[in-house]
Amino acid sequence: MEKKHLPLVLEEQGSFFIGGERVERTAIELGIPAFGAGHITINQMYVEYMIPATEDRRIPVIMVHGGTLSGQSWKTTPDGRMGWDEYFVRNGHPVYIIDQVSRARSGFDPAVYNNVREGLAEPSSQYSIFRSTDELTWKAWRLGPSYGVPFDDTQFPVDAAGELSKYNVADLNAMFPAPGPNPTYSALSRLALQLGGAVLMGHSQGGAFPMQASYINPEGVKGLVLIEGGAALNGLTDQQLATLTKFPILNVYGDHLDAESGVPGFSRRALFDGCLDFIEKINAEGGHAQMLYPPDLGIFGNTHMMMFDKNSLTIAGFIKDWIDNNVQL
Amino acid sequence: MEKKHLPLVLEEQGSFFIGGERVERTAIELGIPAFGAGHITINQMYVEYMIPATEDRRIPVIMVHGGTLSGQSWKTTPDGRMGWDEYFVRNGHPVYIIDQVSRARSGFDPAVYNNVREGLAEPSSQYSIFRSTDELTWKAWRLGPSYGVPFDDTQFPVDAAGELSKYNVADLNAMFPAPGPNPTYSALSRLALQLGGAVLMGHSQGGAFPMQASYINPEGVKGLVLIEGGAALNGLTDQQLATLTKFPILNVYGDHLDAESGVPGFSRRALFDGCLDFIEKINAEGGHAQMLYPPDLGIFGNTHMMMFDKNSLTIAGFIKDWIDNNVQL
Repeated sequence: MEKKHLPLVLEEQGSFFIGGERVERTAIELGIPAFGAGHITINQMYVEYMIPATEDRRIPVIMVHGGTLSGQSWKTTPDGRMGWDEYFVRNGHPVYIIDQVSRARSGFDPAVYNNVREGLAEPSSQYSIFRSTDELTWKAWRLGPSYGVPFDDTQFPVDAAGELSKYNVADLNAMFPAPGPNPTYSALSRLALQLGGAVLMGHSQGGAFPMQASYINPEGVKGLVLIEGGAALNGLTDQQLATLTKFPILNVYGDHLDAESGVPGFSRRALFDGCLDFIEKINAEGGHAQMLYPPDLGIFGNTHMMMFDKNSLTIAGFIKDWIDNNVQL
Repeated sequence: MEKKHLPLVLEEQGSFFIGGERVERTAIELGIPAFGAGHITINQMYVEYMIPATEDRRIPVIMVHGGTLSGQSWKTTPDGRMGWDEYFVRNGHPVYIIDQVSRARSGFDPAVYNNVREGLAEPSSQYSIFRSTDELTWKAWRLGPSYGVPFDDTQFPVDAAGELSKYNVADLNAMFPAPGPNPTYSALSRLALQLGGAVLMGHSQGGAFPMQASYINPEGVKGLVLIEGGAALNGLTDQQLATLTKFPILNVYGDHLDAESGVPGFSRRALFDGCLDFIEKINAEGGHAQMLYPPDLGIFGNTHMMMFDKNSLTIAGFIKDWIDNNVQL
């Protein structure tokens, strides 16, 4: 096998869970009635990590994936290149990847589905389970103007779009849940505290999660990186705004903001403009927020999935430099 | 942070998918009707891997988790010790961990659930989604004779039983599916071929998967390690039996086989006895099958989850030695 890189030298790697609640479920709710009722754990959050073996240890980075995705967002790209996880580890940062609660390795509560199956609950009480299509993904993630047609300057490795389709993991409970905060928020807050301080990086549907974690307890939050998600003034309380001035915040947007999104009523340009207002307001309140918008640097064609784009490590390098220059441990 | 081990030096690590089919789904089947119909990929299998940086490279090992679990079975133990993944990598073996199709990061097809929700399919057409309780797990996985009571000699780190509960990830389509072979079988076969030959290790509900993969194409299969699962004569065709003589097979069972299982009609002792018959028959047909039963070596108290037991690396060491001594690349 061809050696692509120098060896990756880790002090430690592995996995664990944060949070979770022990609940009682009926025999029917557990799917095989003959096996009986009992207790299960729900709302735990899966975490996997790599810690570099280096004397020049930097601040840990917690990476939160977006909608219809899992923690694999941060691992190998669809065309087989190094993910942001390894890039940050090679640059001295311990990296913690999570799967959002109720998705992928974080598991989920099957009770409502099994109750519906047995006629004990109305079918409409069951959550919608959303998966994005290849067609919608192409436009909403801005690979190109219409399905199968890339932008001339796209940075996405379009030959690997079929692989991207395989990254799709639907959410079972948390995206369209019963009222109440997503359990991933508190799990992230606890993880940051447990690490003694971390940068929280969120993408897309997970973009707001680092902000939400900081509202629960800002102590472990040393900086936020919000990638095409989260940052908006709409609905922010004064207390939340005050919290967001306590640490540096980097916002990141790709190119082709005016492309037709494919999602009714959704405009990436509007989110970008809202993010600029957010930055202005945070800074007016004494905070430290910035925008990384590669077209301003003469870099064009980045998509919503910039961690998979052909220039993914260039973008990662900007983020790494920003962390090293702005975040205090 | 205390340094537990020498650094782990990897030539490469990452993730990819094997297999998958592109299918068309209606707008309702995809969960958010306003987003429209389109194509998604189903039946892909998630794979993550670590390749050691060593001149003394051994044969790759593919690890297949059991029921109600994910690939995390092979990673860090519930009490925070090194998993079998890292142990085999540190001993020169590239390791490939999968999530079974329709579980965890392999994703799943939400169509039937969304059709039921919208009244377009009968609730009974929806699959049962099985999660095991803490109570059932304790007995079925032989931590002790009754819930909360460990065997005196148990090897399981019982203080971490609450963490074990968090490893539970239900299967969405594949365990109780429409007729047809589990797509994980062919994905495993393809993975073994792609690696140019591998040892396939399966556990419990996934114990038969390596055998199934070998029936599809034995060429990539250089050896099987079947841990409390799979190996039985019942239902084997002559052709399958002939295939199973082509490579060495190690079967592994823990202790306390006569403990009450908690599962109606299920006896681990009966499976063990069936496995001994299997071994005898394979060897009578010219094959090479063996049993690793630690009590025969004076090692007692191992559970169904021997990759998490306190002596997990002792068991892993026996398996590694067997591979190194019996499997030809």
